[in-house]
Amino acid sequence: MPATFSLLNEDSGARLGRIETRRGSIDTPAFMPVGTAATVKALTVDQVNQTGSQIILCNTYHLYLRPGTDRIERFGGLHGFMNFEKPILTDSGGFQVMSLSKNTKISEDGVTFNSHIDGKKIFLSPETSIDIQKKLNSDIVMVFDECPEYSKDKSIIKNSMDLSMRWAKRSKIEFGNNDEKMLFGIVQGGIFNDLRRESLNRLIDIGFDGYALGGLAVGESQIEMFETVEEISPLMDKYKPRYVMGTGTPSDLLGAVKRGIDMFDCVLPSRTGRTGLAFTWEGKLNLRNAKYTKDDAPLDINVDCPASKLYSRNYLNHLINCNEILASTLITWHNIAFYQDLMKKIRISIENGNFEDFYNQQIEKLSY
Amino acid sequence: MPATFSLLNEDSGARLGRIETRRGSIDTPAFMPVGTAATVKALTVDQVNQTGSQIILCNTYHLYLRPGTDRIERFGGLHGFMNFEKPILTDSGGFQVMSLSKNTKISEDGVTFNSHIDGKKIFLSPETSIDIQKKLNSDIVMVFDECPEYSKDKSIIKNSMDLSMRWAKRSKIEFGNNDEKMLFGIVQGGIFNDLRRESLNRLIDIGFDGYALGGLAVGESQIEMFETVEEISPLMDKYKPRYVMGTGTPSDLLGAVKRGIDMFDCVLPSRTGRTGLAFTWEGKLNLRNAKYTKDDAPLDINVDCPASKLYSRNYLNHLINCNEILASTLITWHNIAFYQDLMKKIRISIENGNFEDFYNQQIEKLSY
Repeated sequence: MPATFSLLNEDSGARLGRIETRRGSIDTPAFMPVGTAATVKALTVDQVNQTGSQIILCNTYHLYLRPGTDRIERFGGLHGFMNFEKPILTDSGGFQVMSLSKNTKISEDGVTFNSHIDGKKIFLSPETSIDIQKKLNSDIVMVFDECPEYSKDKSIIKNSMDLSMRWAKRSKIEFGNNDEKMLFGIVQGGIFNDLRRESLNRLIDIGFDGYALGGLAVGESQIEMFETVEEISPLMDKYKPRYVMGTGTPSDLLGAVKRGIDMFDCVLPSRTGRTGLAFTWEGKLNLRNAKYTKDDAPLDINVDCPASKLYSRNYLNHLINCNEILASTLITWHNIAFYQDLMKKIRISIENGNFEDFYNQQIEKLSY
Repeated sequence: MPATFSLLNEDSGARLGRIETRRGSIDTPAFMPVGTAATVKALTVDQVNQTGSQIILCNTYHLYLRPGTDRIERFGGLHGFMNFEKPILTDSGGFQVMSLSKNTKISEDGVTFNSHIDGKKIFLSPETSIDIQKKLNSDIVMVFDECPEYSKDKSIIKNSMDLSMRWAKRSKIEFGNNDEKMLFGIVQGGIFNDLRRESLNRLIDIGFDGYALGGLAVGESQIEMFETVEEISPLMDKYKPRYVMGTGTPSDLLGAVKRGIDMFDCVLPSRTGRTGLAFTWEGKLNLRNAKYTKDDAPLDINVDCPASKLYSRNYLNHLINCNEILASTLITWHNIAFYQDLMKKIRISIENGNFEDFYNQQIEKLSY
């Protein structure tokens, strides 16, 4: 079946939609937990499913380096390899090349770099990235882009954006025709709105199934991020999904939804979960804190997840204190369930036409 | 309801039985996964339940040190604290005092030592150990004993055993009358069968709800362990459960069942699971080994557990290679499910009167 996006409702800038894929539907605004190396860290796929997640993100860069595509292809792709049946979006690797690899050399053709794991020399290009993503058999494929570091030097950002747009074209050609999957373009241009607009227009000329804002979540403030989103989001194709990559905190999500964004991914709920930090409807709890030795309340009774309801803060504090793996599992599980609960409540409020009320009620509480 | 043990069948030395407790029944021969610090490491209680485990073991020593009894007592005991509804056996701490603590000083009264965590001075005696176990509210309570290191010096072992027997008496007095729980005595005496027999007789004179062999799994060979079991097991009360503490490998379990033992605990399936070692019906697999990069078979299709059937050895090898927490979870989960599958097959064979056939079929394959 062809993958589709339907815009179902609009309310105070926020959008309600649904992506339909061969592997299930994704209600938007959607949060995608990150499963870098073909596992959402510390969780089984059953636990991921129980959080209400309808799609996860995996990383082309990491999977290409380890275990390599051969071992995944034998299962017909990532779904079989990791035993996850719902849709998967694969990042193209562009961001990781910038943030993780060493001795990176960029040419028109692609990027040569040394693996951050074993130093091995690797080459990635639009063609290789899309080819790997085909082998991973993900449902949403991202174009291969160049992700420059945060910079105020416009010429650097302009040159980089130009290259990314030529690579976007090559990614589209390599992707070919496959209406069962979606290919998303990635808007670059740093903090320069004119470059961002130019980038978006060039992507629209090529034509993609969705549009992402890349090069954010690289050190800019929330205000700068929102300014970029506010500037570019309204110019994006109304009938295609809009995705801000690598974001963010609960208030980032609320603010970006208000500015018309449909999709998000972030390591935050899983990474902080492994350090004992819990996102809840009553604030962010650092469960390492000694005060939780006396707190016998469940983590968050408002979130419908076993990890949120069945285990006390006292017990979780004990597990963290003993370096027990179960602490990472339970807090990550809860955090992702909390994120999904937030997205669900956002979607319901858009459906009911009271997103603004919901936003106003929650934004301060969730600005932690 | 009073806790009871029923002997249901005997076959070629092996015994089929059932312990009934207020928290559920335990079919014997039974294997108890170890949940040292109120968690079977890397597993949720749901996963523990899915392995078919009917009872787990927790450690008085560890829980007294961290988090302390207050934080557990507020939940009415361990079950509420860790959210596990089935029976729990608590070890008395005697073994851990010997193996983990520092500056241990033994007197008639009890043991003074420094915590292995923060060096804090701690005192444990028969009375304090039983009192802690009452607060933990476990279903099977162990007497507080002195566990000497492996020694061939008979006078050392004799003096230690004498002390343990006096402590067993004090443990019984402190336990008092509570027919909802069981109190087990622990036979000491090292490698000296006459001391073991004397120890058992003195315990039987005091009268316990079950009898354990302690001071094994401290470095002796399997043959020595079996010799001790073979010597002492037939002398144990036929109508009370018989427990070999801290054992063992699959072949240890098979061999001890053949010699009349009903209960076991061991960290082996969980500890080795965290290192990538899997126990299966076709042998012990070191999933770190490069050959598993090419092995797309499930871990063990003969074990009815999601971790055994749904994930390939290739995928597990990848997770281990990436230090993913999920590797520890899945392999521990499988290993305990495998142990429970072994126990179940042992019980069925005793029920059907063909334990000896089962033993002969499996003992070589499982002697890894």
